[in-house]
Amino acid sequence: MDGKFITFEGPDGAGKTSVMNQVIAVFDQELGDRLLVTREPGGNKISEEIRSVILDRNNTEMDYRTEALLYAAARRQHLVETILPALKDHKLVLCDRYVDSSVAYQGAGRQIGMSQVARMNEFATEKLLPFKTIYFDIPVEVGLERIAKHRDSRKIDRLDVETTAFHKRVHQGYMKIRDQNADRFISIDATQPIDAVVNDTITIIHQIAGEYFKED
Amino acid sequence: MDGKFITFEGPDGAGKTSVMNQVIAVFDQELGDRLLVTREPGGNKISEEIRSVILDRNNTEMDYRTEALLYAAARRQHLVETILPALKDHKLVLCDRYVDSSVAYQGAGRQIGMSQVARMNEFATEKLLPFKTIYFDIPVEVGLERIAKHRDSRKIDRLDVETTAFHKRVHQGYMKIRDQNADRFISIDATQPIDAVVNDTITIIHQIAGEYFKED
Repeated sequence: MDGKFITFEGPDGAGKTSVMNQVIAVFDQELGDRLLVTREPGGNKISEEIRSVILDRNNTEMDYRTEALLYAAARRQHLVETILPALKDHKLVLCDRYVDSSVAYQGAGRQIGMSQVARMNEFATEKLLPFKTIYFDIPVEVGLERIAKHRDSRKIDRLDVETTAFHKRVHQGYMKIRDQNADRFISIDATQPIDAVVNDTITIIHQIAGEYFKED
Repeated sequence: MDGKFITFEGPDGAGKTSVMNQVIAVFDQELGDRLLVTREPGGNKISEEIRSVILDRNNTEMDYRTEALLYAAARRQHLVETILPALKDHKLVLCDRYVDSSVAYQGAGRQIGMSQVARMNEFATEKLLPFKTIYFDIPVEVGLERIAKHRDSRKIDRLDVETTAFHKRVHQGYMKIRDQNADRFISIDATQPIDAVVNDTITIIHQIAGEYFKED
């Protein structure tokens, strides 16, 4: 692999998406087409079709393992169609969520078992992990408050209809993944004001992908 | 599990489907609602949607691992919605293809690797294997001839557009699975006239699921 693969992870309510949008706006100017910003399903036709099966609110009887397999299928196709070609092309790839999300949400949140979900995803990724993962760290209570506050204004899909207990398990799952991947995870204090979180994120990416910013 | 789970396996061209239809016609009368005959995707809405993603001829760039994960997802949902409730209800379940098909077709045929596909499917099935598997055994050349003969008259989907080399690998894959599961596999000589194959199949099912035929 010639490019550099960095993922963004964190529980709902950590503000990950807002921060990413601001960070990307800055990097887009600096890096141009040496940057790929993506997230599953990533716009490819097959993964979009799979995603629509997962999110269909009529599919209420979907088994949790079926769901986890579908996420892994969409991930595989996104990896092959989007991430791997960009890495081969020496790009800096920033991806919003990847395997860790499935291990936290399906493995811990849905209680399938973290190691089982991790192992199944190794089939999908052929064990390709990110170079570094930036983790948006908030205490579980803060995350839950933010989720509750935003719920009204959001388009409700099947995944939003979740209990507090579920979100707590996801949070605990992430803590465990971070402990087990201490070399890969870099935590950012996401309880700070958004400008500070954005600055921290930019600083970290400069550090871990310095070769992309040499001309600065 | 209170019911009995039996699968039918074999390469394309073994005549499995024609034989099954005749066998089922006989058993339907004898067993009534103590019998469930099924095959993936099995009519449930979610698995049918997944199947249509797999078979969509526009999806020509589908990665082989994506395909294997989608088959496993459809399998999982079929297992949970159809097979497990029938087994809980003490039924005799005859299922046309199951995990062995993925290991032979995706693992060996697509060259993903048989043990990798088998392990990934353990996530989908929670390691539930059939009580017995009836294998429709034909030499690889006979199978290839029959496939060629039937091709013209069949609706062509993405999976039919395959090479001879692919079908040979599937065949070899099945041979290996049979060797590794000698206690579970029961082979039938599928080169015999169809009436003989039907009779052999009925005899075997009487032997391995005798408790369902006690009133005979």
